[in-house]
Amino acid sequence: MIRAIGGLKEGFSDIGDDLALCDLDGMKLAAKVDMLVWSTDVPKGMKLWQVSRKAVAMCVSDFAAKGVRPMACLVSLGLPRGMREEEVEELASGFGRAKEEFDVEIVGGDTNESKELVIDCAMFGLSEGMVPRGGARVGDRVMVSGPFGYTSAGLKMIMEGMEAEPRFRDRALRSVFMPEPRLELGITLAGKRLMNSSIDSSDGLAISLWELADKSGVGIELESLPVGEGVLEFSEMNGLDWEELVLYGGEEYEIVFTVSEDGVEEAKALARELGVELIEIGRVVEGGGVKYRKRGRLEPVRRDGWIHLR
Amino acid sequence: MIRAIGGLKEGFSDIGDDLALCDLDGMKLAAKVDMLVWSTDVPKGMKLWQVSRKAVAMCVSDFAAKGVRPMACLVSLGLPRGMREEEVEELASGFGRAKEEFDVEIVGGDTNESKELVIDCAMFGLSEGMVPRGGARVGDRVMVSGPFGYTSAGLKMIMEGMEAEPRFRDRALRSVFMPEPRLELGITLAGKRLMNSSIDSSDGLAISLWELADKSGVGIELESLPVGEGVLEFSEMNGLDWEELVLYGGEEYEIVFTVSEDGVEEAKALARELGVELIEIGRVVEGGGVKYRKRGRLEPVRRDGWIHLR
Repeated sequence: MIRAIGGLKEGFSDIGDDLALCDLDGMKLAAKVDMLVWSTDVPKGMKLWQVSRKAVAMCVSDFAAKGVRPMACLVSLGLPRGMREEEVEELASGFGRAKEEFDVEIVGGDTNESKELVIDCAMFGLSEGMVPRGGARVGDRVMVSGPFGYTSAGLKMIMEGMEAEPRFRDRALRSVFMPEPRLELGITLAGKRLMNSSIDSSDGLAISLWELADKSGVGIELESLPVGEGVLEFSEMNGLDWEELVLYGGEEYEIVFTVSEDGVEEAKALARELGVELIEIGRVVEGGGVKYRKRGRLEPVRRDGWIHLR
Repeated sequence: MIRAIGGLKEGFSDIGDDLALCDLDGMKLAAKVDMLVWSTDVPKGMKLWQVSRKAVAMCVSDFAAKGVRPMACLVSLGLPRGMREEEVEELASGFGRAKEEFDVEIVGGDTNESKELVIDCAMFGLSEGMVPRGGARVGDRVMVSGPFGYTSAGLKMIMEGMEAEPRFRDRALRSVFMPEPRLELGITLAGKRLMNSSIDSSDGLAISLWELADKSGVGIELESLPVGEGVLEFSEMNGLDWEELVLYGGEEYEIVFTVSEDGVEEAKALARELGVELIEIGRVVEGGGVKYRKRGRLEPVRRDGWIHLR
């Protein structure tokens, strides 16, 4: 997903981070908008309540990565003309679920008619100091909040009919339909100053790492890839390259962050208390870009990421 | 335009006013989202920069009506796949223009691919006490910030090819393509406590008056209609009922408000300093609903408003 319209042209401010931060009379407001579009964001088989829940979860994940608690959101809906009352109710129930799950009040909205379903979520909260993309320091360890590859595998099952072992299939489809942003983890780690730089990984692992490296003016060297259990077997079964799934898939709602070496164990312990197993994947080095040390040789990681469904 | 998703079902909070108001750790944040959709909101002949400017102006008008200064906004775009670079630039230039015109910083956004152009604007500001819809008191005078009927006339020229005298045509089309929200007026009147209740009129005059009456638990009696210059002639020329255009047209971005009788002259004088001629159209009475005193007889005004272009 192209995230910032900052790059488009004059008229936009380039924010270049997961959240926009505004100073309103001395108060720091963190805000985010994220638009979900039926034809490019919703895979076959996803229930309407999962779609509206995900529209909110996408925004929550950006707050999670920055360590900021979201407080409220407004939701704009574009509803296709033929949409039935039960379908609108199902959408509403997904918003209700998201509200409970993430404790984010839905304070307003706007309903329109459009050619396809569009859900735009605008979320905000207060920030005393959000973790930036650009804060990585040479020597930091690079961590992720969970394994990668499930969502790409799930999308390949849905869109290309690929085969999978039933338990892996369930897990992969769940990662597509029910993304779980790591809100408490992000807030906890940021509160303890255990993230020097961070980003939400939904555009894909490789591009997220590139963003951290570019914004921080450093390089990243990966020592291992956070491959999800069963992703290798699935890739083999379907003639895929598992590294491609892990690095360039996207749609995972994990936090990718860097932490000073002496904070690694504390971060892991705090995460474990929240039921999250942090995975160390590499370190921050001088230079630029992202490389992967594979069988003793440094290979470049492409600056590629998730592109919308076609 | 259906404004609030409050009514939809559980999962939404019913806000029932032009802006949502949230208490964030003691700070009152006023927020609004407004979605503009190509197929239902953009009449033929409207330039792309006017479309993006209007998407922002629509939100600004809600802040104007509530007397709250907007500070920043985020913009989500759904762009059709075939959109050319120059078209995207034109959109961006309209946002740039809106930013200058209304002094609202665009702090972030999200860009997506969609089947048709969708622009969702999320705007916020700080509010010390926004003017509610529900504050009208029996005895208040009912005022509007400008004449009505131009936009409906303009839309009829565009969509049904209706004829018009050239100067009237220019004015009517301008009202469609370049709506001018009454931001300074709203902030000034609210600051002097000269609005007891108020609403942005973009859904149409009749429905806006109904909203004020319903939310305040009072009735409204109109004594005259704020008909724009030339609207009568245009209506006659095209076999239309001018009262229909004025009451049920919509898409005017005026403020409809009530003011205590002893505040009327001060409000008019302040408005005049800002180049705005306030029009008194009736008064707040006991009871409910909206009626129009026409040739000595009270006639009901329907609770009808603007519906999207088809």
